[in-house]
Amino acid sequence: MDEIREECGVFGIWSNSGKGAARKIYYGLTALQHRGQESAGIAICDTSKERGNIRLHKDMGLVGEVFGEGVLSELEGNIGIGHVRYSTTGESSPNNAQPIAFQYLKGSLALAHNGNIVNASELKEQLLEDGSVFNATTDSEVIATFIAKNRAHTGSIEEAVKMTIPHLKGGYALIIMSPRKLVAVRDSLGLKPLCIGKTEDGYAIASESCALDSINAEFIRDVLPGEILTVKDNKIISDTEGCIDKSRHAHCIFEYIYFARLDSKLDGVSIYSARINAGRALARSFKDKADIVAGVPESGITAAMGFSMESGIPYTNIFCKNSYIGRTFIKPDQSERESAVHMKLGVISQAVEGRSIVLIDDSIVRGTTIARLIDMLKQKGAKSVHVRICSPPFLHPCYYGTDVPDEGQLIAKKMTTEQIRDMIGADSLEYMKIEDLESMTGDLALCKACFDGNYPTAH
Amino acid sequence: MDEIREECGVFGIWSNSGKGAARKIYYGLTALQHRGQESAGIAICDTSKERGNIRLHKDMGLVGEVFGEGVLSELEGNIGIGHVRYSTTGESSPNNAQPIAFQYLKGSLALAHNGNIVNASELKEQLLEDGSVFNATTDSEVIATFIAKNRAHTGSIEEAVKMTIPHLKGGYALIIMSPRKLVAVRDSLGLKPLCIGKTEDGYAIASESCALDSINAEFIRDVLPGEILTVKDNKIISDTEGCIDKSRHAHCIFEYIYFARLDSKLDGVSIYSARINAGRALARSFKDKADIVAGVPESGITAAMGFSMESGIPYTNIFCKNSYIGRTFIKPDQSERESAVHMKLGVISQAVEGRSIVLIDDSIVRGTTIARLIDMLKQKGAKSVHVRICSPPFLHPCYYGTDVPDEGQLIAKKMTTEQIRDMIGADSLEYMKIEDLESMTGDLALCKACFDGNYPTAH
Amino acid sequence: MDEIREECGVFGIWSNSGKGAARKIYYGLTALQHRGQESAGIAICDTSKERGNIRLHKDMGLVGEVFGEGVLSELEGNIGIGHVRYSTTGESSPNNAQPIAFQYLKGSLALAHNGNIVNASELKEQLLEDGSVFNATTDSEVIATFIAKNRAHTGSIEEAVKMTIPHLKGGYALIIMSPRKLVAVRDSLGLKPLCIGKTEDGYAIASESCALDSINAEFIRDVLPGEILTVKDNKIISDTEGCIDKSRHAHCIFEYIYFARLDSKLDGVSIYSARINAGRALARSFKDKADIVAGVPESGITAAMGFSMESGIPYTNIFCKNSYIGRTFIKPDQSERESAVHMKLGVISQAVEGRSIVLIDDSIVRGTTIARLIDMLKQKGAKSVHVRICSPPFLHPCYYGTDVPDEGQLIAKKMTTEQIRDMIGADSLEYMKIEDLESMTGDLALCKACFDGNYPTAH
Amino acid sequence: MDEIREECGVFGIWSNSGKGAARKIYYGLTALQHRGQESAGIAICDTSKERGNIRLHKDMGLVGEVFGEGVLSELEGNIGIGHVRYSTTGESSPNNAQPIAFQYLKGSLALAHNGNIVNASELKEQLLEDGSVFNATTDSEVIATFIAKNRAHTGSIEEAVKMTIPHLKGGYALIIMSPRKLVAVRDSLGLKPLCIGKTEDGYAIASESCALDSINAEFIRDVLPGEILTVKDNKIISDTEGCIDKSRHAHCIFEYIYFARLDSKLDGVSIYSARINAGRALARSFKDKADIVAGVPESGITAAMGFSMESGIPYTNIFCKNSYIGRTFIKPDQSERESAVHMKLGVISQAVEGRSIVLIDDSIVRGTTIARLIDMLKQKGAKSVHVRICSPPFLHPCYYGTDVPDEGQLIAKKMTTEQIRDMIGADSLEYMKIEDLESMTGDLALCKACFDGNYPTAH
Repeated sequence: MDEIREECGVFGIWSNSGKGAARKIYYGLTALQHRGQESAGIAICDTSKERGNIRLHKDMGLVGEVFGEGVLSELEGNIGIGHVRYSTTGESSPNNAQPIAFQYLKGSLALAHNGNIVNASELKEQLLEDGSVFNATTDSEVIATFIAKNRAHTGSIEEAVKMTIPHLKGGYALIIMSPRKLVAVRDSLGLKPLCIGKTEDGYAIASESCALDSINAEFIRDVLPGEILTVKDNKIISDTEGCIDKSRHAHCIFEYIYFARLDSKLDGVSIYSARINAGRALARSFKDKADIVAGVPESGITAAMGFSMESGIPYTNIFCKNSYIGRTFIKPDQSERESAVHMKLGVISQAVEGRSIVLIDDSIVRGTTIARLIDMLKQKGAKSVHVRICSPPFLHPCYYGTDVPDEGQLIAKKMTTEQIRDMIGADSLEYMKIEDLESMTGDLALCKACFDGNYPTAH
Repeated sequence: MDEIREECGVFGIWSNSGKGAARKIYYGLTALQHRGQESAGIAICDTSKERGNIRLHKDMGLVGEVFGEGVLSELEGNIGIGHVRYSTTGESSPNNAQPIAFQYLKGSLALAHNGNIVNASELKEQLLEDGSVFNATTDSEVIATFIAKNRAHTGSIEEAVKMTIPHLKGGYALIIMSPRKLVAVRDSLGLKPLCIGKTEDGYAIASESCALDSINAEFIRDVLPGEILTVKDNKIISDTEGCIDKSRHAHCIFEYIYFARLDSKLDGVSIYSARINAGRALARSFKDKADIVAGVPESGITAAMGFSMESGIPYTNIFCKNSYIGRTFIKPDQSERESAVHMKLGVISQAVEGRSIVLIDDSIVRGTTIARLIDMLKQKGAKSVHVRICSPPFLHPCYYGTDVPDEGQLIAKKMTTEQIRDMIGADSLEYMKIEDLESMTGDLALCKACFDGNYPTAH
Repeated sequence: MDEIREECGVFGIWSNSGKGAARKIYYGLTALQHRGQESAGIAICDTSKERGNIRLHKDMGLVGEVFGEGVLSELEGNIGIGHVRYSTTGESSPNNAQPIAFQYLKGSLALAHNGNIVNASELKEQLLEDGSVFNATTDSEVIATFIAKNRAHTGSIEEAVKMTIPHLKGGYALIIMSPRKLVAVRDSLGLKPLCIGKTEDGYAIASESCALDSINAEFIRDVLPGEILTVKDNKIISDTEGCIDKSRHAHCIFEYIYFARLDSKLDGVSIYSARINAGRALARSFKDKADIVAGVPESGITAAMGFSMESGIPYTNIFCKNSYIGRTFIKPDQSERESAVHMKLGVISQAVEGRSIVLIDDSIVRGTTIARLIDMLKQKGAKSVHVRICSPPFLHPCYYGTDVPDEGQLIAKKMTTEQIRDMIGADSLEYMKIEDLESMTGDLALCKACFDGNYPTAH
Repeated sequence: MDEIREECGVFGIWSNSGKGAARKIYYGLTALQHRGQESAGIAICDTSKERGNIRLHKDMGLVGEVFGEGVLSELEGNIGIGHVRYSTTGESSPNNAQPIAFQYLKGSLALAHNGNIVNASELKEQLLEDGSVFNATTDSEVIATFIAKNRAHTGSIEEAVKMTIPHLKGGYALIIMSPRKLVAVRDSLGLKPLCIGKTEDGYAIASESCALDSINAEFIRDVLPGEILTVKDNKIISDTEGCIDKSRHAHCIFEYIYFARLDSKLDGVSIYSARINAGRALARSFKDKADIVAGVPESGITAAMGFSMESGIPYTNIFCKNSYIGRTFIKPDQSERESAVHMKLGVISQAVEGRSIVLIDDSIVRGTTIARLIDMLKQKGAKSVHVRICSPPFLHPCYYGTDVPDEGQLIAKKMTTEQIRDMIGADSLEYMKIEDLESMTGDLALCKACFDGNYPTAH
């Protein structure tokens, strides 16, 4: 696919009044499904039982496919964590689904992880030397084993987490569950998002605030980069010793450009506003003339509205999306290739015929899809198509968990903007300037390494 | 669900150069999936074989679920018809899936049907008297048996269809396949849509033009109300004897308001334009003040854009739709009811906080969903919500195949507009006026019986 | 497969005290599963409801696969019929599964059918001339339509059946259900079996008595060849007008040789005894010497015991059957062919090494399996293998519903017994003599057409 | 169920000439399916690849359900191991399916295990202390981790196995696969069986010889108790340092009585012969009179034949087994209880009516099934039923992997033989005497702890 993909979403729940944690996690994960559609899992525990036994169910598929009424009702307990996954490191196999649950010296633990540990292979090597064995091929198993080892030399799970953190390099958001507690951690740079909310009878932790909304939880705040936040006996305990100065943060810009859901707010910045502002920024440097502005569904829609607001050029939809194209859809083969994009997006002739169009998208990875869309628009009579992209050209790989094609497939690496414009058949093409990214997120310190190569950590 | 539902979509293909009809029908039906998600089916035949044998596969489910690579590859042939279904008459059972295929005196036939025959039970009674037996509970089996009986007394399938047509009262679009031909018919009032297009090697017939686009077929024209159109030996033969004057047509207004896909054009009218115009008409009579205009996804989105164009009030999205809520999604139960709509639509706080909003939807059936949405908007800080509806109040049942709730559940039947406004919590509420419907579709003669009770046929 | 196959089993239940008919049919069909494993179905009705509505569920697969708890619990009613099917006439498709249920002039009917109507195509032609249409390709639909037509001219369903019977040529056992009654019929020759039993609160009708045992019903008697037996208001009404003299009966010999279950008794003859006697008859003409006698599982096992009893040669098992080879088992391909039979049957070396073996089977169709078995026995050290077959050579096709390979594949048609012996690698081979068949079934009048070509009807 | 169950079967293959290992394992596991029907798995490797990557597929279900053509074809490689499982220790969950595959310091390993480690919890505790974490709840993961740890301090996998063996107490048969080798080990007492055979292009290792037969492999010999047998570069290397004197062996008697397949030969003793001899031994002490002897299918069948041979009383079958009662079969509920056994076994009236019957079974656990069978026989007219059991009363738990009911449910623990006879309704009841067990297996040293409480190891 011609897309950049996020790898994971995590969700945790503490329900003081009793049962029902699994259902809440089910809803929370469904709200985070856009962050990963490959596998889903829930681990549950009952804090009222003397010897907490962690129950786990996970499998390949969407949340709604992995969990039926029967499975959900067997996941009894009042605390739990859940996970949706896209495979970045590790193969796409049931074995790599999360959460992972395991037994260790002091009892049992479960862990759900979003992100990428840059030094995972070194840590793994070290653990292998100590005699550890690994069942999966994920970073998460490395982190879990590390925490379990440290737990042997310390008095609590949160202390074991604290001992482990300094060794982890990269971007991550973790939720760890022991039979009594939830521990939430975020990398000190804030590369991966995590926030906490108040439910009617406890707390919820989620990758994005939209998941809190989905269960009617009230957003409290983002977990701080570097913070270790423990939920225990229905109380929150914060340990901020690992936090660093805000100015040294490096929040992933792609959460705002593409990954996060429109109705989420991450580290104080509304995704919706960021995208509206991206469109506005593009509009400010727009010199051409156009009759209408439109977005590539869904990635360019909101920015297109912002472009319209700033420029006064009317916004409209020009594509009709077929929402019934599921996983089992049989794609047209080579000889029928032309209908592949046709099936997903129909062009609304009436909206485009004889018109000059500004077409907004979030990014160009390989350029094949946008080229096909422009061709379809011209076939339906569009006079001209001016493409504007809400991000600078993608030039560098991401080491923190974003799945980007190999450098060889990044079009911006191989062609000039003019060559790309020509290849995709646009009448004009402009990317957002790196300096304009701040218009999206204000004074938030960003990781823009994929655009400028300035990585916030060694890698 | 709080919705009005269409019952069916039909698709037919004539592929002169050889095989591949089934795959084209698969794509066509996928493009028509919005017209029916209950069952899907394809019947195929090979005209080059001496004794054409009709192969049929149909089952409950979406097109992509019913047909896998294996099944599709076994459906060999160069002509075929397909069907997607919502159950209106007849139970929702595999037995009632279409197309239906059967053997009769002169060979075999298959039939795909969209619509409702008002006098089906009388016709059935008559056939029962003659000794017919019925396996399903659909109108379609009645029509098929009638045609088969008539074929015994005439020289061709198209003549048998012609003998049958005068007996059918109601709204319908039919595609009939014999081992040599396709015959397409539309009721003389034009209640149900049907159009024909040219493929690279033959013809395609479809309920909506968007299905022709999906296989890169070129739209030729709508099948005329009352026309019998035969595709045979790669030629089109038209019999227009049953056609009546345009002014007596009665095209279903709900195709334009809600059913048809945005990128379709039915009987010369673009669905997109009709909805943009609906929004414009609502804007013209808008007296209140508002900061933004938005639509209920997806039904009110396009009209909201039209409203924005006419009024100058900026359009934006205020809801974020979760596209992963599938059929197997476990709905929150009574005690969790508040999160049900929450799961499907998240409110974008940043877009609504402190703002006066015009919220557009296509219709109000029971009012429960819009009431919940308004409540969510107010919780997120909306200053006021002005609801505008793209259709007049729904007051009368439909006898032509549209699935409307019982009269007792139609809110407009029981409450004044002011009472409804109060119930849903809107700051103002206005419906489109009946006289404004023409602004949507120009001089097209419409069936508006659901609004004004003027039915175009006895019923 | 190298086998002769039966086509169907039928079962009916009248439960006076109330509900639970579907579960009893489920058990009855499970006991009849050996008669057909292709599809299964149950039709149910509640006689206490004013307008009896027949509910039907059927699908491809075994009884235990087609019916789960959920489906069974929805089949509410106190009378019902069921069917298990092997396809002989008509394709193997869901469309041809039984029972069939349909609506006709006087209400609704369901029908379950075992057997073959020799003149079905003529009857069908006649019905087609009258304007009937057919959905399936089975005889059963022809019979059903015929009965429905006759019902229009008569006062009851049993009379309509009576009008229909004289037109049906062939072998059949039918159970017909109207919303008030069950009607059971058997062809006047008695080609197909059917019996009736008493349950604690009503009656049960079944193809074989073993199905009565399975629900603890007490065997009353066989339905008479030619009898029309109606169960109505918890009473049995018998109409024997169509019965003929016992001496003119023609009971299918293959029920005794192979089809029926060992614990059934059909028309007064125990299947077990018939097979024991077959073995005894073979033993009486046995001139060779042998250390042990064994049977091919399961078809030759019982006769082998009879052979042992008569001859005094000890019986033992020499094969170990793998009962986990299910439908989804991936068969070894050409290059691995040798392990195909190996997987199903393991040879018990200890039992065969150095021994002379009498090996009994029911019949030889193509000879490939027995050849492979003999080869396996010799590899494991068998000194000699004397094959004895419980039936005469199979020389003529069956027109009454038994699925035999094409004449071209019948080995006895192409080779002498000596040639067959040589081909299968046996040290001696003898078939049962036609005149010895009576030793199996006493004075029961038999259809032995497959052996002697004397067909009891025109065909 | 009223049964004693085995826990596992293992199978390994070395195919020198190239691919195809997975299919051979598939057939081998199918032949071992009687040893475990809960889960199945295959791990595969290609020794020709520089860095051998182990591919693993396992799931709940029968071999034929877990592996389809698609899955099998993806398991490419020339060496592999497989496993079928019954859960004894560890829960019945997908997580506990085998083989297990993991990464460790020196690369990757897979392991398949049959048996029970008596000191597993102590070993686990020790590993936990060292910082190990565990994903499953099986002994197998403990063994695997132990071997992996030892591999760090030694030069080869077989040496690591050798270092591990002395620490494992209990009964086990293991096959370990590294990317280059297979290592097979058996506990030094020989509690669990394992043998090796020659294929056309390599070697096969299996729990029972019947699995070698299934792929046409030639039996070479049993793996010796205590032997470490390595298959490497298409050669067998034997290390017998851990072997002990034959007289100290303790082969599980239940393999001969019940577990193993009739056509297998374990440690030189044919299962068939052992059971024939068991029947003969029972016959020798038989004082009553009887007309026929029969066995409970399948467990008592072979012994019944032996009884017949010794006593001269004719053997026959008196039950007809329904082989279509699958996992999904809906069992009759309480109120229908009588038909539960009726469904599985039908009584052949003709064979039992008026007769005195010797009925043989392998063991009595709770006595409910045999009680029901005797009742059925008497209902069908049996004059008397003399029950003879091929094993002594079951009095002590098994610690080596055989799944026996809790002591409280062992009928022999609570009742005298006379009381049991009365309870099951038999006319006489006798168990095999402990001293007669040797008649089954000759001079093989046995573990008979379940009968006499003499355990061969601490436990």
